[in-house]
Amino acid sequence: MTAGTPAAGVARTRLNVSDYRDLVCRALAEDLEGGDVTTVATVPDDLRARGQIRAKQPCVLAGLDVALEVFRQLDPEVVVREARRADGDSCTRGEVVAILEGRAAALLGGERTALNVLQHLSGIATGARRYVEAAANRTIILDTRKTTPTLRALEKYAVRAGGGANHRYGLGHGVLIKDNHIRMAGSLTEAVRRARAALRQHALVANAGHLANRVEVEVQSLAEVDEALAAEADIILLDNLSLADVAEAISRCRGRVETEISGGVTLDHIPDLAALGPTYISVGALTHSAPAADLSFDVTPLR
Amino acid sequence: MTAGTPAAGVARTRLNVSDYRDLVCRALAEDLEGGDVTTVATVPDDLRARGQIRAKQPCVLAGLDVALEVFRQLDPEVVVREARRADGDSCTRGEVVAILEGRAAALLGGERTALNVLQHLSGIATGARRYVEAAANRTIILDTRKTTPTLRALEKYAVRAGGGANHRYGLGHGVLIKDNHIRMAGSLTEAVRRARAALRQHALVANAGHLANRVEVEVQSLAEVDEALAAEADIILLDNLSLADVAEAISRCRGRVETEISGGVTLDHIPDLAALGPTYISVGALTHSAPAADLSFDVTPLR
Amino acid sequence: MTAGTPAAGVARTRLNVSDYRDLVCRALAEDLEGGDVTTVATVPDDLRARGQIRAKQPCVLAGLDVALEVFRQLDPEVVVREARRADGDSCTRGEVVAILEGRAAALLGGERTALNVLQHLSGIATGARRYVEAAANRTIILDTRKTTPTLRALEKYAVRAGGGANHRYGLGHGVLIKDNHIRMAGSLTEAVRRARAALRQHALVANAGHLANRVEVEVQSLAEVDEALAAEADIILLDNLSLADVAEAISRCRGRVETEISGGVTLDHIPDLAALGPTYISVGALTHSAPAADLSFDVTPLR
Amino acid sequence: MTAGTPAAGVARTRLNVSDYRDLVCRALAEDLEGGDVTTVATVPDDLRARGQIRAKQPCVLAGLDVALEVFRQLDPEVVVREARRADGDSCTRGEVVAILEGRAAALLGGERTALNVLQHLSGIATGARRYVEAAANRTIILDTRKTTPTLRALEKYAVRAGGGANHRYGLGHGVLIKDNHIRMAGSLTEAVRRARAALRQHALVANAGHLANRVEVEVQSLAEVDEALAAEADIILLDNLSLADVAEAISRCRGRVETEISGGVTLDHIPDLAALGPTYISVGALTHSAPAADLSFDVTPLR
Amino acid sequence: MTAGTPAAGVARTRLNVSDYRDLVCRALAEDLEGGDVTTVATVPDDLRARGQIRAKQPCVLAGLDVALEVFRQLDPEVVVREARRADGDSCTRGEVVAILEGRAAALLGGERTALNVLQHLSGIATGARRYVEAAANRTIILDTRKTTPTLRALEKYAVRAGGGANHRYGLGHGVLIKDNHIRMAGSLTEAVRRARAALRQHALVANAGHLANRVEVEVQSLAEVDEALAAEADIILLDNLSLADVAEAISRCRGRVETEISGGVTLDHIPDLAALGPTYISVGALTHSAPAADLSFDVTPLR
Amino acid sequence: MTAGTPAAGVARTRLNVSDYRDLVCRALAEDLEGGDVTTVATVPDDLRARGQIRAKQPCVLAGLDVALEVFRQLDPEVVVREARRADGDSCTRGEVVAILEGRAAALLGGERTALNVLQHLSGIATGARRYVEAAANRTIILDTRKTTPTLRALEKYAVRAGGGANHRYGLGHGVLIKDNHIRMAGSLTEAVRRARAALRQHALVANAGHLANRVEVEVQSLAEVDEALAAEADIILLDNLSLADVAEAISRCRGRVETEISGGVTLDHIPDLAALGPTYISVGALTHSAPAADLSFDVTPLR
Repeated sequence: MTAGTPAAGVARTRLNVSDYRDLVCRALAEDLEGGDVTTVATVPDDLRARGQIRAKQPCVLAGLDVALEVFRQLDPEVVVREARRADGDSCTRGEVVAILEGRAAALLGGERTALNVLQHLSGIATGARRYVEAAANRTIILDTRKTTPTLRALEKYAVRAGGGANHRYGLGHGVLIKDNHIRMAGSLTEAVRRARAALRQHALVANAGHLANRVEVEVQSLAEVDEALAAEADIILLDNLSLADVAEAISRCRGRVETEISGGVTLDHIPDLAALGPTYISVGALTHSAPAADLSFDVTPLR
Repeated sequence: MTAGTPAAGVARTRLNVSDYRDLVCRALAEDLEGGDVTTVATVPDDLRARGQIRAKQPCVLAGLDVALEVFRQLDPEVVVREARRADGDSCTRGEVVAILEGRAAALLGGERTALNVLQHLSGIATGARRYVEAAANRTIILDTRKTTPTLRALEKYAVRAGGGANHRYGLGHGVLIKDNHIRMAGSLTEAVRRARAALRQHALVANAGHLANRVEVEVQSLAEVDEALAAEADIILLDNLSLADVAEAISRCRGRVETEISGGVTLDHIPDLAALGPTYISVGALTHSAPAADLSFDVTPLR
Repeated sequence: MTAGTPAAGVARTRLNVSDYRDLVCRALAEDLEGGDVTTVATVPDDLRARGQIRAKQPCVLAGLDVALEVFRQLDPEVVVREARRADGDSCTRGEVVAILEGRAAALLGGERTALNVLQHLSGIATGARRYVEAAANRTIILDTRKTTPTLRALEKYAVRAGGGANHRYGLGHGVLIKDNHIRMAGSLTEAVRRARAALRQHALVANAGHLANRVEVEVQSLAEVDEALAAEADIILLDNLSLADVAEAISRCRGRVETEISGGVTLDHIPDLAALGPTYISVGALTHSAPAADLSFDVTPLR
Repeated sequence: MTAGTPAAGVARTRLNVSDYRDLVCRALAEDLEGGDVTTVATVPDDLRARGQIRAKQPCVLAGLDVALEVFRQLDPEVVVREARRADGDSCTRGEVVAILEGRAAALLGGERTALNVLQHLSGIATGARRYVEAAANRTIILDTRKTTPTLRALEKYAVRAGGGANHRYGLGHGVLIKDNHIRMAGSLTEAVRRARAALRQHALVANAGHLANRVEVEVQSLAEVDEALAAEADIILLDNLSLADVAEAISRCRGRVETEISGGVTLDHIPDLAALGPTYISVGALTHSAPAADLSFDVTPLR
Repeated sequence: MTAGTPAAGVARTRLNVSDYRDLVCRALAEDLEGGDVTTVATVPDDLRARGQIRAKQPCVLAGLDVALEVFRQLDPEVVVREARRADGDSCTRGEVVAILEGRAAALLGGERTALNVLQHLSGIATGARRYVEAAANRTIILDTRKTTPTLRALEKYAVRAGGGANHRYGLGHGVLIKDNHIRMAGSLTEAVRRARAALRQHALVANAGHLANRVEVEVQSLAEVDEALAAEADIILLDNLSLADVAEAISRCRGRVETEISGGVTLDHIPDLAALGPTYISVGALTHSAPAADLSFDVTPLR
Repeated sequence: MTAGTPAAGVARTRLNVSDYRDLVCRALAEDLEGGDVTTVATVPDDLRARGQIRAKQPCVLAGLDVALEVFRQLDPEVVVREARRADGDSCTRGEVVAILEGRAAALLGGERTALNVLQHLSGIATGARRYVEAAANRTIILDTRKTTPTLRALEKYAVRAGGGANHRYGLGHGVLIKDNHIRMAGSLTEAVRRARAALRQHALVANAGHLANRVEVEVQSLAEVDEALAAEADIILLDNLSLADVAEAISRCRGRVETEISGGVTLDHIPDLAALGPTYISVGALTHSAPAADLSFDVTPLR
């Protein structure tokens, strides 16, 4: 992972304060109910201090504004002296990311909450960047809906900060027919037919509306690939197929429909899978198993 | 509008209780804070009663489950004796829609709140059905984002109950380039180019993800239609063009991109506009100016 | 409707920020979850712009502060350069109401939400003003509890901005005996007697307390008018009586009790009804069927 | 205070579950976050038990349903075996009020929260009953807006359970001109005149609407009494006048306007004040200084 | 109670804005829904004024920041000209506590809400200070969980402002075995044994974690004191024992375990009880029966 | 990891429904806004089905009740046919954990949300169990405050389900002096002295109260160990010391104070560190970097 800013010129949707104000408020309540007793006891109330957020490992940053909001909610007069990196930037080990100043008590009281969110989101962005780099522009790395409950918007944002793309946000944002649906509908063909009919009448997909009327269907064998092609699905999700079958499936789909590889994909698999030329590879581990990135916060008194 | 059920065989996404439980709770609090003083004073506390929801005009029903939830939150033992119509059904003038039984105080206390939501949503569904029937299957009637603040999900649901389809849910659910964006980007071509580039890198559209990567652009003249076609937009929104220009625009777009007519469309215009063969006609008035449907609730004591 | 400010010298209760802060927050979340992808893709992040709110039809303004709050929540540095009109003022077609400056992305991202609330409330105020002018000071135009669920406080405010007055806010704010109550109590006389007894003991009306101890009763015939007079009701609500019966009823009540006309009243009826001299005419359509007022928001880049 | 039910035949507005469901939920969260560690450690998980709510002093009950909701939220299968008393009833020392059965852990975990709300509200009701009995039907005992923040609805309910009546609920529910307003308006006469003008135009009192259009004004001397009478106030609030002045003031007002005595009134003063025949006496201490009523909860295992 | 600041040099945990921002918001909504109609009618909209918070009785202040937040939420431009006292300070009768300036309407509209919270918390702090002074440093005065539902954090803060200490916050913050638990477990010895075993395995006390692993047990007789000592409890709570038994119990416990006296303790008992040398005396009345402190708010126009 | 139930006889605090009801509600809203369009289109509305939760890897279960609540909120009639395992139990690969029946649409609509929470919490419990087994009863494994924002209570519960113990819940639950505090206070000795003084006056620790008055201090060298011992800290946290220094530090502390090892501890280090006999080892990775446990949900139609 090379340090620096992400691919130039590609605007990515950012967070609004309204996306995290309430989360920060609840997270602070979670940590601070009853007050920061240690700081009250040991630190003079009027002491001012400087705090440095520092990367302790190479990582891709995500959530810096959320972390800063933590301190601002504790003390509206906390100021950001320097913001050397922004979300999506790669940081080297030991690099200073941002420098703040404010009441020592606010910096100490917000430290853990700020780091928790920054480390969590940067961990996701860092992992996503690794997958994206392993794919070497041959395919698009997608996340899944396997996110931490109630944090989906932030976690999908972190995936984008890492250079990945987002699969649908929720069940209301697009049709993806899985094995469970096929079993209920009787057959893959029937399931696709029903979905297509409903979409044609625009009776579904309240959230994305007429802009998202594609049908994706999950297949588990080459026979199902052929069935899906015959049923005129728009995207075929190849779930847990062998490498050979994936190759064959993609070759049958090429030029006709988009393909997505899914199912227990790890970083090691990416180069081989990407070489087969799927449109997408989706990776649940991007969000459900990302280890936290290691960042620290050092506070020094200003006298 | 003919009475009966909507087009057979098309499943439409319904509401979950979680879509309206909180709304009902807040609406009841709004009306009932301090109690229903008239009922307390005049109605015996243990009296049981039957309530009939009745259509006082021909209308399409929407929000019946929401209305029933109103009574259930006041008295868990309210029971629905008959539910003769369901959301999406057309009702004739005077027809009984549903019959409930429960504590008289609960039926009286919930009456206004239940009717408010039922009349509002049924008003929208009824209007939508009129537009859909006027379009006579030649085009798809879309709603807009011109909804009552915080009620968008329910209002878009009511549009579907009326047979209409939904435009994108919000700003995060798809790219629609309007005149304001074009002015900021410098030109229509440049705006479409930028959107296309970002979508190609899957850096946008967090909500709908890879299922919604189409670019819609609003045009205000035939010259802009040509510019949009050259820029390879996916959908062209014809905003406030004359009828002749709309006809010409659709003819230039046919077979190449989808078209959407928009801008001050009223029911009278629909047959002529639909005859021109646009893919969609979007109508802000479906949600921002729908008069309430007239339904009543009559309560009779059970002794 | 003549342009200008409302009747001079009459202070009307305004909104506090706390009346709409949360609504604006939830409305923005509704529209902006996932970000404003079009703006992100097409508009430079640091571009500043000017936005003009303009009336596209003659209307009475209501909700301007709420609309401005929309932009402020997106960007605390949005400033109002000019606020040429205030709530309650009449605007002419094409008139500029207010001019704002701020980040282009904030102006574009908040446009729809701001207009939705402003158009909805101004639509109500505009309608109310028409009814008030049709009444020509001969009677007071009242709203009802037929409001959009959870928006009652704002909608009743808009009625006041239009010059109308408010009927009771909710079921806890005053006694109004309707046909359903009469049926449960056995008779109109008995219902009024019970309500009077409870009020005399001050056991009801938690919200308005000892300041609101009047009993209003709905009647459906001249016989019931006489019964209500004998029962010593304070206000008699004439529901769906013929014009002749209304005239007779008011003449029987004059000098003894206040009268309110109600039931399917439209604008056309107002002059004739007002000429009969009722104290109040209440109009459900003020809030349940008000079409949105047409206002627009034009954004121009500041370079 | 004699045991038994309150004045027969007067219905009083009760609480809806929606009035306290959220409060109970937040109160339980406050006490139970992290679980009831003592019960977990010491009480078998499947043990069932019986709990008795018992009055440990003579008191008037208020909040019993709220207390029962506490247990129900912890264990939907808690059942009320007997509810011997209801809100508004007087209880003797040692009397059993209600008997419940359910999981021992739920009874123990909810005990403190249930008692806290029951003791607080019963304390208010008990105090209110003492004032009402001291007034001996010669005057009406009113509460004030001096309530515990966010608990006003429940506390005003408890006052009613004790037989008291409610002054206005909040600032939006009626006009009461106090010394601070008079100072701002320039004179009492001017303040009343302004209020009367605004009320006449129905521009105020959004909450109670046209049912509450009376003007109350606070006076601090006999001269102000005369000024208020001349200004045609509807209710005159005598604030902190000497007993002799109160007597004189009431005699000047009799037959013309209602009177309210206020200002540091304690239980001892009530007989003398009531003997003077004011319409109302309002007592802040009813809600701001009510000691908790003593009730207990004993739990016995069911084997 | 002597005027002045509390014991020098002991830092006490203060409130964060996040501890009360939401409470203030909901309390304002409670009082101001519908607007402050009296002020709207009688006070010029642009009038500015000065407000003085004044102690009308000797008291210990608590909640001043909360009261100021009330005014700030109504008008961000309210400024504190002088804050002569802070939470924990004693005030003399008539002393001015703080002086504010801002829009007259904001000062009048927030007056009652601000005073309600300030009087409630200062009432608790004042009572706590009296108990602490009566204990004369011989014992520690503790509060209990007998707090007003949803206000526990603020009320426990007020106890600390008065110089008292806090018992556990909730059921998840430490083991306290009461008579109900003993009855369920079979015996005191068995209950302590179970709690000790669970704590040793660190299976409990999620909130306080490994820092709070002490077992407190309530006893009702000297025999139970001996049983508790034998069971190796860490703190013995003497509940409703006679003075002689308390003396004997403390003498048996001295040097071995901490002791806490509890049960109907009033201010009069404190000197005698404290003289016996218990570690703690806990007083439910500190929070459940504290009368409001008398403070006023006078507003004068600034012209 | 051996399959089966955890150490017999140790009760662990469980979750209350109130601990997760709101989380489940918000998580469902996150995934289901707009409805489950695929299921609506492809699955008959009245079809009933059976769903099996199955472990796809050896794991320790945590969050099963939360997962079941997900389905119950979607369909109150979902029933649990079998619950073969409970939180804290070890599961073998392929083992069926629970079997549910209900509407197919509810099972399909809740699948992802239920799995997300179950996999996240079981991932934490599984990791915790590994650390606990590696410690082989020689030391207690503690978590930290390095949790996912707003999910702390559930994550700390999962640690307990895995057999670990909880460090303090938040900053208000106990004194832990870290390097940042020492720097602010001037020296370790001074920081401990201040904390001890404040605790002695019981001015801190609102949440845990008098049950948690121990001072923990972080040291970074053997010199600081000696300083902490001299300052009479209760627990010494050895942060990032070398193995040799840890050994020496523990030997100096033995019999005098408790010790806690912390700082980048991984599973490999545990046996060596535990052999040194610290009281606690705390592991941030338990919560901040736990990979999800692999569990699946298979749905079969019931005809």
